[in-house]
Amino acid sequence: MNAMIRQLPRLSAASTKLSRCAFASRSVHIEKKIEELGIELPAAPAPKANYNITCRVPDENTLYVSGHLPITADGTLITGALNPEGGGLTVEEGYEAARHCGLNIIATLKNHLGDLDKVEQVIKVFGIVNSSTDFKHQHLVMDGCSDVIMEVFDKPVGYHARSAIGVNTLPLDASVEVEAIVKIKS
Amino acid sequence: MNAMIRQLPRLSAASTKLSRCAFASRSVHIEKKIEELGIELPAAPAPKANYNITCRVPDENTLYVSGHLPITADGTLITGALNPEGGGLTVEEGYEAARHCGLNIIATLKNHLGDLDKVEQVIKVFGIVNSSTDFKHQHLVMDGCSDVIMEVFDKPVGYHARSAIGVNTLPLDASVEVEAIVKIKS
Amino acid sequence: MNAMIRQLPRLSAASTKLSRCAFASRSVHIEKKIEELGIELPAAPAPKANYNITCRVPDENTLYVSGHLPITADGTLITGALNPEGGGLTVEEGYEAARHCGLNIIATLKNHLGDLDKVEQVIKVFGIVNSSTDFKHQHLVMDGCSDVIMEVFDKPVGYHARSAIGVNTLPLDASVEVEAIVKIKS
Repeated sequence: MNAMIRQLPRLSAASTKLSRCAFASRSVHIEKKIEELGIELPAAPAPKANYNITCRVPDENTLYVSGHLPITADGTLITGALNPEGGGLTVEEGYEAARHCGLNIIATLKNHLGDLDKVEQVIKVFGIVNSSTDFKHQHLVMDGCSDVIMEVFDKPVGYHARSAIGVNTLPLDASVEVEAIVKIKS
Repeated sequence: MNAMIRQLPRLSAASTKLSRCAFASRSVHIEKKIEELGIELPAAPAPKANYNITCRVPDENTLYVSGHLPITADGTLITGALNPEGGGLTVEEGYEAARHCGLNIIATLKNHLGDLDKVEQVIKVFGIVNSSTDFKHQHLVMDGCSDVIMEVFDKPVGYHARSAIGVNTLPLDASVEVEAIVKIKS
Repeated sequence: MNAMIRQLPRLSAASTKLSRCAFASRSVHIEKKIEELGIELPAAPAPKANYNITCRVPDENTLYVSGHLPITADGTLITGALNPEGGGLTVEEGYEAARHCGLNIIATLKNHLGDLDKVEQVIKVFGIVNSSTDFKHQHLVMDGCSDVIMEVFDKPVGYHARSAIGVNTLPLDASVEVEAIVKIKS
């Protein structure tokens, strides 16, 4: 994998642990499931410029989640285009990258909501795949994101609408970027 | 047109006929109009992976429609980039492809709602056009989708917000992909 | 900057002046701020085809804003790809282009709402940056749009969710395209 490694600013582990303790007495079915699945959530991304990681619509329970990049639990950004025939990322590597986008979105939801059981419906995900022009399997790459959302939230909560497209380049050379719209329980 | 032909899984004609019968006694103004316009709807696309073709927001009447590809009524996927000067698709061929994306979305709405008169407003369409880098008329291509939506639903129901962009590649080499947000009557 | 200059159809200055007069007695805090910031809004873009510049969801106060291009106050469309190392637009020029997309969206909101104080929340912006394949700073370009939204609306009203992506081409060779979702006061 010809991907570069970068460190991005993250919320500290301490602040993540703190919020976990604060909600220890609440229902944590989804978080137990995440543990049982052996999934390690990355730290939730922190804002980096004049925009927010999420925006909740006033007087509604709809949460818009900004574009998330494939950052692993150790802080590595997965980079490089999907380009199996040209020595770039394979479908399998892209699938893993999209899965990490999904995990970063779940980390953001946990950070925003305190408790992932508050998610009523993952409504929509939009996935953008960094691709060489001859790569035509963006849908198989985005299955990595859809699959982890369904593993964690299952039907009907996790069963989302989706679009997947290819592009010639993405911010920081990220391999995949995913944004989402989520309905929160009132 | 240097497009390839592919067969994608579809809902069977039988299931489509069944749902048509079930709603025979309901108002079918839009569907009559579709007949009068001589438009043949394709079979509605079926889910192919861990995501849904549509997602209705709980407690709301907003329907998110996943990215739809330009599949003709005989099941052919229109493929290849818009690239008039390089021997690829012309604006006219792209327009036709975008029109088929719109028809596939309408088929999905009919399949989901039973009755297209339940559409209160086509709110937004987002069109992504497979394009060579020197092609700059994605808006003219997407007019094929906007025009068929307006032919079928007219103002104000069909009068939607829209964005159109170009990309270097799309899933399965589709020429156009369109997603939509639709308000349903309560 | 290797950008071409084009004139696009706009609402006339007269119609803009008329709507400004009609709301002269209403609160105009945001518009005063725009004046104080020395910002000149362009004329609001007019519809060019079978779609609308905005679509308001019936029975809701959510406004979907169609993709807006970087048109300056004198009617010039900023064109060309971000390609600093190949003689194309620099990050600074792209930032300016994205700022103009933001200003065009604000002009559309003013034209639609009469009074920008009616904006309750800028929920989401999606920015698409015309990019050479080796350009990886679409987020820095889109800061031009996010910054002007925050200058004008400030927190919390202007504090939006955002995604930024790169593409190989855009309609009319625009350097940036931005669409938005905005909550309006009821």
